[in-house]
Amino acid sequence: MSLKEIFYPKTIAIIGASDNPQKFGYEVTKNIITNKDDNLTVFPIHPSSEEVLGLKVNKSVLDVADDIDLAIILVGQRYVIPVVKECAQKKVKGLIIVTAGFSEINEEGRKLEEEIKTIANEAGISIIGPNCVGIINMDHSLNASFIETPLKGSIAMIAQSGSFGAACFYTLSDQNIGISKFANLGNMIDINYSDLLPFYRDDENINSIGLYIEAVKKGREFYETLKEITPKKPVVILKGGRTEQGTKSALSHTGSLSSGFNAFKAAATQAGALMANTIGQLTSGLKALSMMPPAKGDRVAVITNAGGVGVILSDELFDYDITLNDFSEEIQVKLKEGLNPLVKPTNPVDTIASAREKEYYHATKTLLEANEVDIVIAECVIPTFLEMKSDEHIKGAINAWNDTGRKKPLLLCWMSGHLVEKPIELCGQENVPIFLEIENVAFACHSLVHRWKVTNKLK
Amino acid sequence: MSLKEIFYPKTIAIIGASDNPQKFGYEVTKNIITNKDDNLTVFPIHPSSEEVLGLKVNKSVLDVADDIDLAIILVGQRYVIPVVKECAQKKVKGLIIVTAGFSEINEEGRKLEEEIKTIANEAGISIIGPNCVGIINMDHSLNASFIETPLKGSIAMIAQSGSFGAACFYTLSDQNIGISKFANLGNMIDINYSDLLPFYRDDENINSIGLYIEAVKKGREFYETLKEITPKKPVVILKGGRTEQGTKSALSHTGSLSSGFNAFKAAATQAGALMANTIGQLTSGLKALSMMPPAKGDRVAVITNAGGVGVILSDELFDYDITLNDFSEEIQVKLKEGLNPLVKPTNPVDTIASAREKEYYHATKTLLEANEVDIVIAECVIPTFLEMKSDEHIKGAINAWNDTGRKKPLLLCWMSGHLVEKPIELCGQENVPIFLEIENVAFACHSLVHRWKVTNKLK
Repeated sequence: MSLKEIFYPKTIAIIGASDNPQKFGYEVTKNIITNKDDNLTVFPIHPSSEEVLGLKVNKSVLDVADDIDLAIILVGQRYVIPVVKECAQKKVKGLIIVTAGFSEINEEGRKLEEEIKTIANEAGISIIGPNCVGIINMDHSLNASFIETPLKGSIAMIAQSGSFGAACFYTLSDQNIGISKFANLGNMIDINYSDLLPFYRDDENINSIGLYIEAVKKGREFYETLKEITPKKPVVILKGGRTEQGTKSALSHTGSLSSGFNAFKAAATQAGALMANTIGQLTSGLKALSMMPPAKGDRVAVITNAGGVGVILSDELFDYDITLNDFSEEIQVKLKEGLNPLVKPTNPVDTIASAREKEYYHATKTLLEANEVDIVIAECVIPTFLEMKSDEHIKGAINAWNDTGRKKPLLLCWMSGHLVEKPIELCGQENVPIFLEIENVAFACHSLVHRWKVTNKLK
Repeated sequence: MSLKEIFYPKTIAIIGASDNPQKFGYEVTKNIITNKDDNLTVFPIHPSSEEVLGLKVNKSVLDVADDIDLAIILVGQRYVIPVVKECAQKKVKGLIIVTAGFSEINEEGRKLEEEIKTIANEAGISIIGPNCVGIINMDHSLNASFIETPLKGSIAMIAQSGSFGAACFYTLSDQNIGISKFANLGNMIDINYSDLLPFYRDDENINSIGLYIEAVKKGREFYETLKEITPKKPVVILKGGRTEQGTKSALSHTGSLSSGFNAFKAAATQAGALMANTIGQLTSGLKALSMMPPAKGDRVAVITNAGGVGVILSDELFDYDITLNDFSEEIQVKLKEGLNPLVKPTNPVDTIASAREKEYYHATKTLLEANEVDIVIAECVIPTFLEMKSDEHIKGAINAWNDTGRKKPLLLCWMSGHLVEKPIELCGQENVPIFLEIENVAFACHSLVHRWKVTNKLK
C-alpha cells in the first residue's frame, strides 16, 4: 500500500486537467494548485491542451521526466484503462480514479474495474476509487478532490460518499472546526477502510476518526482492524443502510451490497467503535473526541439558564444511561455562593434567565473543580434582555475552563440562531468546540463517556 | 376565560414598568411599545417613576381612567398580592404574572399562588403564569414578553418554558419563518393547555400548533381537549421529562410533577397529536404542517444530488414506516429524459454531482406531476464546483413547485453550512420552508403523512 505517497505526495500528475471551469478536471487542478506548498510539484496531463492554470501540460504521464508519486484520473470512462496502463508503465505509486460509470452502473462497469485492478496489481499501484471525489490532507496542504477545502484540524474521515464529507466539512467549517485527513473511497476496488485505518492510527495529527460506511467488503478483516485501532484512537461510525430501504438505496449508490446492520453494529461496538445515527451526531462525537481532554469518569454536571432545555438534556442523557447525580452538600453551598438566591443547586443547575458572565464563570469553575464531577455541560439560550452581550455567558464558561487548566471536558451547547455568531467566533479563537443542538451535545457527552469506558475496558 | 382580552387587548397596564434596561420591567415595556400599533393603549404603572420610555406613569392601576383589558405584573414577589388585589378592584380582565419565586421555589410560594388564584377567581380574572416570560401575538402586533420578537407567521405555540420558545423562534427566524401566537404558561395556576387549545383552534391565523409540556395538571381534560382539536388543526408535542431523570429536572423547574411519559404518549397519540423528540423535530413538523398543502397519501419520492445523503434519508424515512416505492416504467422514462445518462431512475433518484437547476427542475416537476407520488423531498449538498450557483438547485425545485400549482407538499433539505444563505433567502421570498438536517426533513415528511392518516381516520 502506497498510502504515504498518496497522502503525502511530492509529485502529482493530474490526468484530465482542464482549463474549463465546467469540468471536474478544472476543479481538482485548481484545488491542488491553490492549496499546495513548495513540497509538491504538479504535472497536468491532457492530450491536446498546452497549458492549464498557468502550468505546462504533458500529453501523457510517460512524457514527465520526474517520478510520479500520485496520479489523479479525471478522463472519460472509456479512456481510464489506457491511462492506467500508462501509469503502470510509468511506475506511478498511487492512483485516485475520480471518473464514475463503473460497477455502480452495470455489470460491464464491474468488469472494467476488474481489469483496472489487474493492471494496477501487477504494477504494484494502490488505487482509491473509482467513482469518488478524491482525498484531502490538510497536514500536507493537499486538496486532491473537487470539493471545497475545509479548515485544518485534528479530525480524520473516511467516507464512501464524497458529498457526505462535503456536508460534514461545511458545517464544521462554519463552527471554525477543521479536519486533518479525508478520503472518499467510492467503489473501493482496492484501498478500503481496513487499509486506511492503520495509516490514520499512526498519523499524529489525527485525534479522532469518523467513518461513513455503506458496505464493508471484508467484514472479518474490518472487525479485526477496528479492534486493533480503537485502543489507540476513537472511531465513530455512521452506517448508511441501517434499514432494508437504506440498503436498497446504497446498492444503487455505490454498487455495494450493504451488510446487515444489526450484525455490523454488534461487531463494531464489540470492537470499541461508537455508532452514530445522524451527521450531527457523527460530527459532534468527532469534535468532542478530537478537542477535549479525555473524561476520567461518567459523572456529568449540567449548567443552564433555562429550565426547559435543562429538562430536555436530562432526558437525552438518560437515553445514553448517563445519570446526573445530586451534588454534595459542599458543592451545593459553593454553587449558591455565586448565584441568584432563587437558584436551587440541583443537577442540572438552572442559573435562571438573569444569569450572566459572572454566574456562568462561577458555576462552571465550581463544577470543573469538584472531585465529584468528570464532565461539565453548559447550556445557554442566549438572552436578549437586561443588556446582556451575546457572548458573555460563553466567555464566563471558557474562562473558567482556562483558569482550571482545561483538565476536564467542558461541552458548550449554545442555542440562539443568528445570536450564536459571536459565541462561535470566540470558540474558534479559543479552540473550543461549540454545539448548537441539545441532542448533539448529549451525543458528544456520550462519546466522551464511551471513550472512557473503552480505554478503561469497562465495556 | 378572558383569552380574547389577553391576546387582543385594547388597553394594557404594565405593572412594574421601568426605564432601567437592567430590569425585566424595561424589556417588556420596550417590547410592547416598539411593536404595538394604534389598536393598543399602554399604561405603565410604577409607584415612584414619572415617565417610562416617554409614557406617563401611574402609581397604580386604580389611577388609570380607562378600562384595562390586560395587566402584566413584573413587580417583586412580595408585591404581587397587593397588586393583584388592585387589579381585582379595577376589574382587569386578564393577568400575566411574569414574577418568579412561587411554587417552583417552595411550599410558601405555593401558598401565595393559592391566594392569588382565590383573589383572581372571585374577580373573574384569568391568569397566565406566574414564573413566565409572557405571551406574543404577532396578529395583534403584541409582544407582551421579555423575549425577542419573532417574525409573523402561522405557527402557534404553548410552552411551559419561556426560553424554550425563544430557542425555537431564533431558529425559525433565521430561516425566515414566523409565528402567530406564543404563550409561556409558567406555573399554570389558572390558564393551562386545555384552556388555550380551543382558542388557538378557532384562530384563523393559526395553521399548526406546537406544545412544549413538562406536566399536565388535569390529564383527562387535556386528552379530551386534544381529541377535539386535532381533527381541525395539527398538534405537535415535545414532552420534557420523557425519562425518570428528565422528570426530576422538570419538578425542579416548574414545580410540577411530570406525568408518566408512556401513558402521556399513548393518550396524546390516541387523541391525534404527533410526538416530537427534539426541538428540531418540533419546529420542522410545525413548519411543514403550517406551510405545505396537505398530503393526499403516503407515497414519497426523493431527489438528491448525492448518494450518501439519499441513503441516510431512506433509512430515516423507513424508521417512520415511510416506504419509497419504485417508480413506474412511465415515470422512469420521463425522469431519464432530462437527466445525465449515468443516472438510474430509482427512488431516491440520485441526479449525481453534475446536476444543476435544469435537472432539479425536471426531476421535481416530473415527480410532482406523477399520480403515483404524494410528497416530494428534494435534498441537495450544494456543489462548489463546475461554477454552480449556491441557489440554483433550490430555484429549480421551487420553480417546479410553482409551475405545478403548489398542489403537493415539497420538502427541501439543503445541506451546506454558510452556502445555504442564499437558498434560505430565496425560501423566505417564496414562502417555502427549508430544512437543514436529514433527520428533520424526515420528521417533517412523517408529520405530513401522520396528518393525512389522522384526517382520514387511518390510524
